[in-house]
Formats: sequence, C-alpha cells, structure tokens
Amino acid sequence: MKPSVGIIMGSQSDLPIMAEAAQFLEELGVGYELTVVSAHRTPQRMIDYAGSARERGIKVIVAGAGGAAHLPGMVASLTSLPVIGVPILSSNSIDGWDSILSILQMPSGIPVATVALNGGKNAGVLAASIVGAFDSEVAAKMDSFKATLKEKVEASAAQIEEKGWKEILKK
Amino acid sequence: MKPSVGIIMGSQSDLPIMAEAAQFLEELGVGYELTVVSAHRTPQRMIDYAGSARERGIKVIVAGAGGAAHLPGMVASLTSLPVIGVPILSSNSIDGWDSILSILQMPSGIPVATVALNGGKNAGVLAASIVGAFDSEVAAKMDSFKATLKEKVEASAAQIEEKGWKEILKK
Amino acid sequence: MKPSVGIIMGSQSDLPIMAEAAQFLEELGVGYELTVVSAHRTPQRMIDYAGSARERGIKVIVAGAGGAAHLPGMVASLTSLPVIGVPILSSNSIDGWDSILSILQMPSGIPVATVALNGGKNAGVLAASIVGAFDSEVAAKMDSFKATLKEKVEASAAQIEEKGWKEILKK
Amino acid sequence: MKPSVGIIMGSQSDLPIMAEAAQFLEELGVGYELTVVSAHRTPQRMIDYAGSARERGIKVIVAGAGGAAHLPGMVASLTSLPVIGVPILSSNSIDGWDSILSILQMPSGIPVATVALNGGKNAGVLAASIVGAFDSEVAAKMDSFKATLKEKVEASAAQIEEKGWKEILKK
Amino acid sequence: MKPSVGIIMGSQSDLPIMAEAAQFLEELGVGYELTVVSAHRTPQRMIDYAGSARERGIKVIVAGAGGAAHLPGMVASLTSLPVIGVPILSSNSIDGWDSILSILQMPSGIPVATVALNGGKNAGVLAASIVGAFDSEVAAKMDSFKATLKEKVEASAAQIEEKGWKEILKK
Amino acid sequence: MKPSVGIIMGSQSDLPIMAEAAQFLEELGVGYELTVVSAHRTPQRMIDYAGSARERGIKVIVAGAGGAAHLPGMVASLTSLPVIGVPILSSNSIDGWDSILSILQMPSGIPVATVALNGGKNAGVLAASIVGAFDSEVAAKMDSFKATLKEKVEASAAQIEEKGWKEILKK
Amino acid sequence: MKPSVGIIMGSQSDLPIMAEAAQFLEELGVGYELTVVSAHRTPQRMIDYAGSARERGIKVIVAGAGGAAHLPGMVASLTSLPVIGVPILSSNSIDGWDSILSILQMPSGIPVATVALNGGKNAGVLAASIVGAFDSEVAAKMDSFKATLKEKVEASAAQIEEKGWKEILKK
Amino acid sequence: MKPSVGIIMGSQSDLPIMAEAAQFLEELGVGYELTVVSAHRTPQRMIDYAGSARERGIKVIVAGAGGAAHLPGMVASLTSLPVIGVPILSSNSIDGWDSILSILQMPSGIPVATVALNGGKNAGVLAASIVGAFDSEVAAKMDSFKATLKEKVEASAAQIEEKGWKEILKK
Repeated sequence: MKPSVGIIMGSQSDLPIMAEAAQFLEELGVGYELTVVSAHRTPQRMIDYAGSARERGIKVIVAGAGGAAHLPGMVASLTSLPVIGVPILSSNSIDGWDSILSILQMPSGIPVATVALNGGKNAGVLAASIVGAFDSEVAAKMDSFKATLKEKVEASAAQIEEKGWKEILKK
Repeated sequence: MKPSVGIIMGSQSDLPIMAEAAQFLEELGVGYELTVVSAHRTPQRMIDYAGSARERGIKVIVAGAGGAAHLPGMVASLTSLPVIGVPILSSNSIDGWDSILSILQMPSGIPVATVALNGGKNAGVLAASIVGAFDSEVAAKMDSFKATLKEKVEASAAQIEEKGWKEILKK
Repeated sequence: MKPSVGIIMGSQSDLPIMAEAAQFLEELGVGYELTVVSAHRTPQRMIDYAGSARERGIKVIVAGAGGAAHLPGMVASLTSLPVIGVPILSSNSIDGWDSILSILQMPSGIPVATVALNGGKNAGVLAASIVGAFDSEVAAKMDSFKATLKEKVEASAAQIEEKGWKEILKK
Repeated sequence: MKPSVGIIMGSQSDLPIMAEAAQFLEELGVGYELTVVSAHRTPQRMIDYAGSARERGIKVIVAGAGGAAHLPGMVASLTSLPVIGVPILSSNSIDGWDSILSILQMPSGIPVATVALNGGKNAGVLAASIVGAFDSEVAAKMDSFKATLKEKVEASAAQIEEKGWKEILKK
Repeated sequence: MKPSVGIIMGSQSDLPIMAEAAQFLEELGVGYELTVVSAHRTPQRMIDYAGSARERGIKVIVAGAGGAAHLPGMVASLTSLPVIGVPILSSNSIDGWDSILSILQMPSGIPVATVALNGGKNAGVLAASIVGAFDSEVAAKMDSFKATLKEKVEASAAQIEEKGWKEILKK
Repeated sequence: MKPSVGIIMGSQSDLPIMAEAAQFLEELGVGYELTVVSAHRTPQRMIDYAGSARERGIKVIVAGAGGAAHLPGMVASLTSLPVIGVPILSSNSIDGWDSILSILQMPSGIPVATVALNGGKNAGVLAASIVGAFDSEVAAKMDSFKATLKEKVEASAAQIEEKGWKEILKK
Repeated sequence: MKPSVGIIMGSQSDLPIMAEAAQFLEELGVGYELTVVSAHRTPQRMIDYAGSARERGIKVIVAGAGGAAHLPGMVASLTSLPVIGVPILSSNSIDGWDSILSILQMPSGIPVATVALNGGKNAGVLAASIVGAFDSEVAAKMDSFKATLKEKVEASAAQIEEKGWKEILKK
Repeated sequence: MKPSVGIIMGSQSDLPIMAEAAQFLEELGVGYELTVVSAHRTPQRMIDYAGSARERGIKVIVAGAGGAAHLPGMVASLTSLPVIGVPILSSNSIDGWDSILSILQMPSGIPVATVALNGGKNAGVLAASIVGAFDSEVAAKMDSFKATLKEKVEASAAQIEEKGWKEILKK
C-alpha cells in the first residue's frame, strides 16, 4: 500500500512512542512509512525528506522529538504539507515542558499540529482523521473506531454498576 | 464558495484572534464558515454543529477558546473530522497555561491539533495545508505563501546589511 | 438508601482515587451512586446523566478526570446542581497541571468546585458537608469526623512528646 | 432576608472581586452577609466567625484571599459547613499560582471548594447552586440564569453570522 | 537544657525531615522542644502553642508542613517571635510548589523565614544562627560548623585531584 | 543608634523595595545601616562586608537581589549571622521565579531566610522579630505593630458592614 | 575590521535586543557582522550562513530568537563553531519559557551557550570573553569593562551612604 | 598536556555528570583539569581558582552545580574568561528549575554560557568548540565528531527501514 503518512522521529529511542502511530494507521488501513531523521544530527537528510514528501504521495507528516525538539517545526518550514508534532518525554527533559513548548509555540506562518505529551497514538488518530476527511472509506473506519471507544466505556460502566466498585478494586 | 473549513469560538471576545484564521483562508481562496459555539453555554448547539459538519462538506474544524478550554476537545469527541485547537489568552487566564493544557493534553483516541497561544493565523495556515494536501491548487498557493515569507526575511536582511543596524533602530 | 451524591469518573482507571469519595460517604451514611461516564468517549451518556440527576434526587455530583479533564466542567454546563471536580494524576500528565487547570479555570457562570490533586477523599468530605449543611444528622457526623482528625493529631503529639522523636524514627 | 451565604475576604482590597459573588446572590434572591476577616491579622475574629456560622443559619461560606491565602483553608478547618475558596490575583503575587495552590491543595479531611482565579462571580454561582440543590425556588432561578447564558451566545452567533465578522471587528 | 527553639510539624509523617533540625540543634548544644501541631486539625492547639511560646522562653519557632501549608504562616500571625517555615514535599504535592508558595508568599506584616524544600537541617542551622547572633558560645560553634563544611570540600577536592576522577567514579 | 541590622542590595534600582525594610526598622526604633553591595560586580566588597558584620555589632543581614540572585546566599556563606533574602522582581525576570529559587533553594548547611517576592517590608518585620526575640523593648513594639494590623482590619470590616459594599465600591 | 563574531536573529523585530550585542563588541573593538536569518522562513540561507562561517573567519556565532526558537540550535547543528543563543521575549510568548527551553535543552552533542532572557548585551560580553581567551588585547579590555562595573557599584554605594536612602528615593 | 579547560563542581556528588565533560575533552585531545570548588563552602578557594585561571593557561571554565547554583555565576564574576554553567538535578531540587534559573538569569555584564540540565557532555562539547574556534586541529576533530553523530543516525535509520519497526521493538 502506497504510504500517505510519513512518520519520522529524532532518535530510535523515540520508537516505542512513535510506533503507536504506525500501529493505529495499520489498523485503519492507512499506508505509512517510518524512519529516523534528526534535525540536529542529519539536517541534510531532513531537508531531503521534507522536500520530497509531497511528490512521493505523502499527505501528512508525523514527527516526534524530545527536549529542545526542533524536528517537527523545521520539517514544517520545509514543506507545505500538514505536520503533526509529538512531544516526547526524554531523559533530562524538564517534565516535558521543553519538548511541548519547542513544538507548540511556532511562529506565525509555520504551524505544527501538536498533540499531547507522548501522544504517539493520538498522532496516528489525527493523521487518519486528516486522510479520512477526503477518503470516505477511512472516514467509516474512524467512525467505527470511535464507536469502539464508546462501547468500552459502556462495558466498563456496566461492570462497575453491576459488581460494585469494591469488587472491582479487589482485583 | 462552499465552506470546507468551519471556524468556531467560545465567545465573541475571541473574534480578533479567530478572524486571523478566516483572513488567511480568504487570501488562499479556501471556503470557510465562522460562528460562535460555546461548549459550556450551548452544549446542544455544539453537538449539532459537530454532528452535521461532515455532511455539510466541512473537512477541518478550527475551534478557539480560553481558560478551561473544552470546546476543541469536545468537538473532537463529537466528530471524526480533524479538529484544530487555538488556545486563547483570556482575562484571568494564568498566562495561557490553562487554555494550552486543556486543549493539548487530550486522552488517547481523541486528539486535537493544537497550535500556539493566540495562534489564530497559524490555525488558518494549518487548515489550508490540510486542504492543500488533497487539492493541488491550494497547495500551489501555500507554496507561494511560503515563498513570500522567505522574501520578506531576505528583504529585511538586505535592508539591515545595507543601511546598518544603527540606521534601522533610529526609526 | 436513595443516593444524594452522584460519583462519576472518566475511566475505570480513576477508580482507586474516586472510591475514596464513596468510602467516606458510606462511613457518614450519605447515599451515593458511582459509575463511569466519559465526556470524550460517551458524550450522549454524559448529557443524559447530568440532565436527569436532579430529578433522580441527586444533590451533588462528584466528577473525576485526568489530563485535559473536561468531564467536571461539561457536567457543570449541563446541570445547575453543584459539581465537585477531582483532578487526577494520570500517566503522561504534566505533573497534574493539565488536569487541575482544565477543571479549575472554568468560565464565568459555570463553576466547578475543585479539590486537590487526587483528592478523592476530600471530594467525599466536601459532598458530605454540602449535604450536612441542610441535614443535621449528617452535620453531626461531620463534626464527629472532625473531632477524630483532632484526636489523631493529639495522640500523635502525645506519643512523640512521651517517647521522643528518636524512638519514633527508629520504627 | 436571612443570610444563607457568608462572604468574607482577607482585605478590603479584595472587594471588587468578592462583590461579584454578592451581586449574583442578590440577583438570585439568595440572602448573604459580607465582611472582612483576616486569617493572619485577626485570627480570633476568624475563629469566632467560622464557629458561629452554622448556628447563625449560614449554609455556605465563600472566602477570598490572595498570596499565601490561608483564610479559606483555616475557615474550613473551623467549621464543617462547605467553604468555597476564591484565589485572588494580588500585587506581588506570582501570576496567581501562590493563591491557587494555597487554597486548592488542602490536606485530607479538610477540603476547600476552589474556583477559578479571581472567580468571585463563580463563587456566587456555586454557592447559589448549593442552596438551589435543596431549594426548588433557587433551583428554578439557576435554570433561568443558565438559559440566559445560552441565549446570549445564540444572539452573538446570530449577529456574527448575519453581519459577518468583518463588520463586527470594525466596531 | 531549657528549650530556646520550638520545632513543630503538621503531621508525624513530616518527622524524618523535621528531625534534621532537632539533630543539628543538639549537635550545637541549643535547647529545643519538638511536637506535632496541625493548623487544620488542631487549630486551638496551634493558638495555645504560639500564644505561650515567648513566655516559655522560646526565641524561634520552626514549623514544617506540606501541600497547602498553613501552619508556619498561621503561627507567625499568632506570635511576634521569628518563625522559620520548612516546605515539605508530601504525596500528591505538585512537585513541592504548593508547599513553597503557601509558606513563602505571606502578606505584608506577617513574614515567615522560608528555607528550601525539605530543608529541615537548614531550618536548624538558621535557628542556631539566630540564637548565635546573641550568644557568643553558639556563635563559636556555628563558626566551627562552617569550618567543617569547608574542610570536607577541601578533602574531597584533594582526593579527586590525587586519585583522578576515574578512580573515584569506579567506586 | 548603633545598627543591629545590615541592609544591602545588589543595585540601587532595588532601593524602592529595600527601603521598606529600613522604614519599618526606623518605626520600631531598631538601628540599621543600608548600602549597595553586588555579589557579581564587587565580590571583594561583599566578602569584606560579610566578614566584618558580626564585629561591627550587626545581628541580622537583610540582602535583596533580582534575577540569578546570588547576594543573599553568598553572604550567608561568608558569615554565620542569620541572613534574610528578599527576591526582587527585576526587568527581564521570569515572573520572579529566578530570584525566588536562587535565594530559597540553598544547599545544606547554608540557609537563607527567604521572604515573599518584593517583600522588603516583611524582611524588616522579620529582622525586627529576631532582634525582639532577645530585646523586650522591641518585642513590645512588635506586639503593638501586630495590634495595629488587627485594628485596621476591624475598622475596615466595621466600615463595610455599616455602609454596605456598594457604597464602598463607589469610591 | 574583519568580523570574528557573527550576530544573527530570526526577525528584524529582535533587533533592539540583538543590537546590544553589537554595541558591546564595538565598544571592545571586536569585529562583527549582523544580519537576519530565519530558521523557519529561510532554511537554506541559514544552512549557507552556518556552513560558511568558519571559512569567513567567524569564531563565534550569536543567534537570537523568540517562541519556539530553533535558530540557535539549528545553527549549532550546522557548524562546529561555538553558538551563543539569546532567548527573546516576543509577543504571545509564554513568559519567555518557550524561547528559553527551545534554546537551552539541546540534545547530547549539539550544545548552545544560552544566556538570560533578552540577554543581548550578555551575549556580546560572552562572545568577547571567548575572543579574549585567545587575544590578550581583548582580554585587557574585558578586564577594564569589569573594573567599570565595580566602580559604578562603588559610586552608587558611596552616594547612598553619603546622602541617605531617603534623599535618593526623592528623585 | 597543559590544561586549557578547567572543570569544577560544587560537590563530589556532581562528578558523574561533570565527568562526561572530561571524558569528551579527553577523546578530542583537549587538555583539562578537574576539581571540587564550592561557592558556599569554600568561597576563598573559589576566588583563588577563578583569579589564577587565566595565568595558568586556562581558556574556558566549566562549572556545574545544583539547587541555588551560585558557582558558575560567581566564577564568572571573578574572571573575564568564558564560563560554561551546567545545571545539575540534585535531590530536593524542584525539577531542576532552581539550578537552571540560578545559572541562566545572570545580570547584565556577567554572562554564564548555560547548557541543558545535566548537560555535562554538552559542556565538554561547547568547551571544545571554543578551543576549536582558534585551533584547527581541535576543529578538525570536532568535525569528525559531528560526522559520527550523523553516521549513527543514518545507521539507525537504515536498520529500522530494513528490518521494520516491529522487529526493532521486539528486542
């Protein structure tokens, strides 16, 4: 399947978070590619990646990074495709504030669509919702996904109401 | 022009920020609609708005709110279209942290594409980039917009190099 | 016993904190009900719950949630009963700030009575104090509870003064 | 009208914020009393006030203070009536964080129902909702108040949709 | 030895931190007393303690508490003796900010001499320095203590310079 | 009158805050001296000042500074007299956090008695309370000062109760 | 004079802050160049600037930017010359935290020498100190500059001691 | 090899972080010395160290400290050599904010080149880049080091693209 979402991360250590995006896209049948691109260690590779994304058929780029996280914003400066940024809580981060603010507070004209700290899965969901805005098949799968979320809460509520909270807490 | 972007805000006092999104979309020739919808004061109106957006042809919703800003996240829970959230620095806000965190830190499965504090224009740019990912005409205009950003910096650099910074600061 | 306090939470993972509210109400003989209601995953269920609470005899609603915690505020928008909000420190939270600010900083006209981070027990105490303001039997039990708090401190002080701090620390 | 809500503040400089609570209660026909009580400057007065509140017929106490705001929490320790705390942004405050955290983060057993920074009006609304939980006349007025909030948003939305945002911003 | 320093804490769980103050005073031969006094659970006991401190010969009060820490400030309002406040990092604290700000940001006229988070030992050192300002014997011991601090650093430096850092890190 | 309190500040721009300490000491009849000493610009002057303070009869040093405020802590390292630190909100400060944390978070063995942001007056009150702990004349004046604080609150309360809050707010 | 320091900024609006660096270098007789380079708007210009700096004789680069400030870090990734970063408090910044953390928290291997918020002058002083470490003439001027700082404080202290603080405050 | 970089730290407990600077300099063949100097415990030793550094041939000083970290700033006030500050996350630190702000927010005229929290290695890299700005041999080694960083990312990307992320995560 031809990838329509490009997932990149600053370091292989970000993979456990970013794989959640890939996992979700796979479940929804949305094609993706995934690799490592570092703004600070491989700037030319970043430029090449961002510059060729549209012609390779990519519709959305998902970029994750920690600390002074420049990858999402720099990629957004190098393409006019939408870029989703995932702040990652790395070691020596200051509770994630550094990563969040480095991705969120982009200057006028160069936005990054920022999701929650360590929000790899949500980046996948957001990418799918963007694809689904123009693809009714993906949209239908998104609606099913949302229905599943609802069903899980309802099942959980039914269980707690039926058994009582004391029984649940015993487990 | 049929609107493909829906711009909503929690209160008319948010209009100066949110109008920047509308302004940008107009410049790029992307159709939009703009109105006031309050999560806390008109919950049913919010549900109706979000529930009917896709069938009305909307591709992206841009929602701005301040303080404990629930509008973007609640709209995201009520549609599977992509939702862009604009944190707004309202009076009695705590430096904008309340608005940013209420929009950004959404739970798993329900992302909001958060932009910078008071980032009305950037929400418009992000919405246009999403539309442009699937519409080559809008994509071309996005590329022109980015070229303009570059030209302005280059002109500014040329001016400062030519005249010297002392001359510029005098103004 | 007919419930006068409704306890809800966004996810079953919030139960250990929210059960402390239930536990306290039980000790004070105040009737309650407890279930799971998610603002983002089951918005219609939330609307139904909040809309029918008063006619079901509920006097106070206690709502707990983490991250971008919209449940307490949205319930407060859907009922004119008092709503107590419990910010919960969930995983990937930013030290609890997201949950606290999403619940506390409600706009004019729609307050949420916010208690401390992970303050499940305090939400129960606050709910009981509200019921006790209009019910002298519950008020008397509240006074007894406060007396117990005092006695525990006095016993602890007596022990430390008698044995000396070195003996206590040895344990 | 016999007061059922007691409004106190640490200093007369807090009056502009705290008067909003009084104003709202007046509009809803809920009796109140209002005075100055300082935890740090008049501790005995605070003890007398809190100790006699229930027998004077008070159902809810609203206490506002800035900086290291001890008044709401100390009053809550001296009565088993519900206490609503209003963090106030005073001069030399650190963006209001000091006041918010001093009121919100109460220890187990002694909650304060905290509202938003400078949330004088919301404290009044919350107090009225507590009274209204046990008084159907006040409850009806609360519902009317909420309806008014909704109507204002709808009127604002109608105006913006009709005239267009450019016209509105001109003003 | 007659106590000249009174050490109090809001809860026995604060003892490991507050015992460090006692330990230091013992080493310097400064008399002290130590007990538990809770602002929120035993307000009358707090009033009695603070009110009688001067006549009992106390020169300085050291008070430790966590969360919305009102004990140091309330004691400072009840006596004109100097009060040293120790912010304590308790469970469910927000990184200690709540405790620090509740103690530090006292209103005009009622200061608390605040030391670092969990600074039990430093509270003891500060109390001893206050006693030592008026007692040359204690002052001499304070000077010896400071000399010891210097010697430890010099010994550590000598060791690292002699053996090399690689040898030290091996341990 | 021989000075028993030494007031120093890092820059003459801190004088409006630090003069409040001098003013209070003057009102209480406590002798003081006041000058400018910069840790970063005149380190030797700082060493001389701190080293000679005790023999000059100084009992307490009050030191104010803004930004990365090293003066209070460095002075505390150079004398065993008690040092009171005043965090000052200077231009380009980050809301005062830099100054507060640089003064408060001193390492083990070298405490600084930190007061509130811009708490010049409170530093004077704290210094007087330290002198008053060993001087019954100053203690009596401290008690009078506290009584005045109480009377002002009572007068303010009487005025508001008598005239009503609407009358007061009109002014 | 051949430039040994390159001063760049993300936008002409940063000039008032960054000109202070230029001004200081001019006073010390250190050659510099100054221009506008934007990481997000002119990435290729940034690459060219950083890539050619060493061969053009530049020894240190000073880069200032606000918000999600990527310029200093990206330049540091593109050259092995030392890069000094100046966080700038721009409009819609969150008290400068975004700019500080985006510049300071660089990943392992790619440091930026960060100075204080709006620290344009200090960036100039740091750049001069680096040049002065290898150039005795500049070192001598740095020592003179430091002596001037000292003299100003001493003059200010003399004035305040002579005239008294009341006289100074009158001005 | 004659040391050109002086590495100091406030306490031996900072060694694991500061040894990373030494390690890097060793790899690049840049001479260094390393010892313990405490601003608060050995102020005279600090003055001697800073005052003699230039004449001993030192070009850059790297200073690490935690909490209210005064060592880097005080050393910067005592020499006109460039000083690199390393904020260290010590126990009882408030998430590192105290250390960062105490080092970063230096007053005008006395900069410290601040690196990331626990950025010992980055301090070494920055020191080497300063030496390398004036020493082509070190500059060449810096370029090799940067090339290695790039190669590692490329190898990691190749591995993930070849094996697929699922295989990598299995490990």
